[in-house]
Amino acid sequence: MTLDQERRSENSGICKCVATPADKTAYTTKVSRNPNIGKLQAGYLFPEVARRKAAHLLKYPDAQVINLGLGNTTEPIPEVITSAMAKKAYALSTPEGYRGYGAGQGERPLRAAICSTYYANLGIEQDDVFVSDGAKCDISRLQFLFGSNVTIAVQDPSYPAYVDSSVIMGQTGQYQKDVEKFSNIEYMKCTPENGFFPDLSAVSRTDIIFFCSPNNPTGAAASREQLTQLVQFAKKNGSIIVYDSAYAMYMSDEYPKSIFEIPEAAEVAIETVSFSKYAGFTGVRLGWTVVPKDLLFSDGFPVAEDFHRIVCTCFNGASNISQAGGLACLSPEGLEVRLNIQILYRKIFNIAHLGKKLILGKKHVWVHFPGQSSWDIFSEILEKTHVVTTPGSGYGPGGEGFVRICAFGHRENVVEACRRFKQLYK
Amino acid sequence: MTLDQERRSENSGICKCVATPADKTAYTTKVSRNPNIGKLQAGYLFPEVARRKAAHLLKYPDAQVINLGLGNTTEPIPEVITSAMAKKAYALSTPEGYRGYGAGQGERPLRAAICSTYYANLGIEQDDVFVSDGAKCDISRLQFLFGSNVTIAVQDPSYPAYVDSSVIMGQTGQYQKDVEKFSNIEYMKCTPENGFFPDLSAVSRTDIIFFCSPNNPTGAAASREQLTQLVQFAKKNGSIIVYDSAYAMYMSDEYPKSIFEIPEAAEVAIETVSFSKYAGFTGVRLGWTVVPKDLLFSDGFPVAEDFHRIVCTCFNGASNISQAGGLACLSPEGLEVRLNIQILYRKIFNIAHLGKKLILGKKHVWVHFPGQSSWDIFSEILEKTHVVTTPGSGYGPGGEGFVRICAFGHRENVVEACRRFKQLYK
Repeated sequence: MTLDQERRSENSGICKCVATPADKTAYTTKVSRNPNIGKLQAGYLFPEVARRKAAHLLKYPDAQVINLGLGNTTEPIPEVITSAMAKKAYALSTPEGYRGYGAGQGERPLRAAICSTYYANLGIEQDDVFVSDGAKCDISRLQFLFGSNVTIAVQDPSYPAYVDSSVIMGQTGQYQKDVEKFSNIEYMKCTPENGFFPDLSAVSRTDIIFFCSPNNPTGAAASREQLTQLVQFAKKNGSIIVYDSAYAMYMSDEYPKSIFEIPEAAEVAIETVSFSKYAGFTGVRLGWTVVPKDLLFSDGFPVAEDFHRIVCTCFNGASNISQAGGLACLSPEGLEVRLNIQILYRKIFNIAHLGKKLILGKKHVWVHFPGQSSWDIFSEILEKTHVVTTPGSGYGPGGEGFVRICAFGHRENVVEACRRFKQLYK
Repeated sequence: MTLDQERRSENSGICKCVATPADKTAYTTKVSRNPNIGKLQAGYLFPEVARRKAAHLLKYPDAQVINLGLGNTTEPIPEVITSAMAKKAYALSTPEGYRGYGAGQGERPLRAAICSTYYANLGIEQDDVFVSDGAKCDISRLQFLFGSNVTIAVQDPSYPAYVDSSVIMGQTGQYQKDVEKFSNIEYMKCTPENGFFPDLSAVSRTDIIFFCSPNNPTGAAASREQLTQLVQFAKKNGSIIVYDSAYAMYMSDEYPKSIFEIPEAAEVAIETVSFSKYAGFTGVRLGWTVVPKDLLFSDGFPVAEDFHRIVCTCFNGASNISQAGGLACLSPEGLEVRLNIQILYRKIFNIAHLGKKLILGKKHVWVHFPGQSSWDIFSEILEKTHVVTTPGSGYGPGGEGFVRICAFGHRENVVEACRRFKQLYK
């Protein structure tokens, strides 16, 4: 019924349409929205936190807001690393130094340095290493690799990118509001009671197990014995572990830094690592993923071959300037200065740990407020101390009642935040 | 039957198994290989060309091989651009200049510069621009956005990433060897007879239309009238055009450089652009994609909102150093020096064009050898002239009988290659 017809029918006193369609003002295509994206809940966690921070700043324009929300690095990158990147940039202006496309899998010298620095004697070789523009990007490329027919398990709570990329890929059912979970995902509960390591005897078999240690957000690190259990669990079930070790260097040496330190892991595990937290490369964008040649699909086809295809088809390699920076990170000089940043961040964490009693974890500070809602705690802390945190429920239903306080802040900011916390929760 | 049972049955003279399973030597997981990746044919085109080049070098270790295969840039980046990247790298070593994560969608000043340089008066705004690490990466993020239920059309021949990412995403059926096509993809034939623009009256409706102008590999550029036809065709069908303009600046001014110069395109089109060929950024990795706010799914939901979610979940922004380079490219000084590179490449193309009679296109040289197989021509040229080209059939069945000769080479190499061609085909 056109608007004109409608008016006439109104005028005649007859109205056949109970709900009159609104005038079509905008053209729409006939392409259906991807129903899997429609399943996602609210915004991705960090943009939502940023939105609330912005609203707070509007309300309190003069507040000294301290951001301990997003796990963002704050300390400058040592000059031995940035000067290598600058040198590479300048070289691109010379006929001898100019390079166009590099290998999609990454430059050989960098892959060799990653192998010798992190995987010496672990059986991992250059061809198993895929240099990337960061762990988050590789997680979605891995989902592209696995396809929509696999099932996944995640630690609960965990980094939201595993669940969200799984939903987008169509591996899950709808979001179930009552339990705050997507159907067809196995949520492995990690609580103070189980020491933040899941009870594997209660975990159903899935094709893929995302496992992050030290975990984001809880900061809990798995011991050698626990990781051995995990590898054996995967092996028994024929599952593939995607092991995210983005924060591994913040652990003391008693903890394995790579899943490949565990016997037989190369038959069941992929490891994804990032330079972001190692060297402050969050904005420079560099990481790597190890897909061992011994990791095989059920038909015997090597997973690495398909991942190579994905990397060649959907990616074109990390920036050559970032790769020059990565190589400098792994030089003897680079390793030494990086150690200094890590010691600095560890000191900051220790300060943060002293500031509040209810503390768990080895990296982020994961604070429990039993019986309260995470977003309520987030709002209360923001309102009363002007400190931005992250609500635990954003990491899965197991995070409800917690907030994550990130200690990747300038030392003085962390000290000041602790002072304000002490006043609020004295 | 276990191995033990089998042996016992053999000992008893009874053998029920005709084919005895081989001893299992390698552990395999129980994860099925993604069947969509299994549909892909051979390797991705360029790795296969690289493999054959390497084999040729083994056979002729002393040959002066000239690579005019992969569309790789060869000319150094002007110093005004690399020094901006070096400056940014150094700044990351200072407390004032250090930045961690940036906006996933790209830095505001760069998005503003892209808008004012390329989209002034076209109605495209900063929020419509998504800075990326290159067009290839964005094509697969767009496929992640669309999901597996859409249908696509491609120019035949065309850049292989459209078809391959579609296959991986599960949008297609199996490869049909007889016609050399995947089922459920609409191949829009582009031939010398139709001036390399498809006869749209013979094209079936699809959700998505990938369209590249100037086309890779043919080099054919669509005129304003042809693009107007294309936009009207999409609008009539409710399709979304993904317009790849990676090579747009090699066209003379009579051709539209952006799809958004065409009326109503913002209701039906996405445009993906790369700094690779604009400024030799193939290894630096930088591009952008425009998703206008007026582009809506059938239910009225803005495509840009879902793409923003994809970018936040599966990507974390392009390297901040590369973005500093992009910003320098768009400065008045940067625009001027870039124009000089473009003039240089255009001159090289002109040399290449003079070298061989059967030539079409405006960018790559697309040479027709009627009745011959592309891989045979590729092999003959490599064997007899030591020049690496790309077989046309790698771009779709419509490319059979052609080879692509890329003129992104050093001037002297292109001149030398032309000399060798003249000898071979005199």
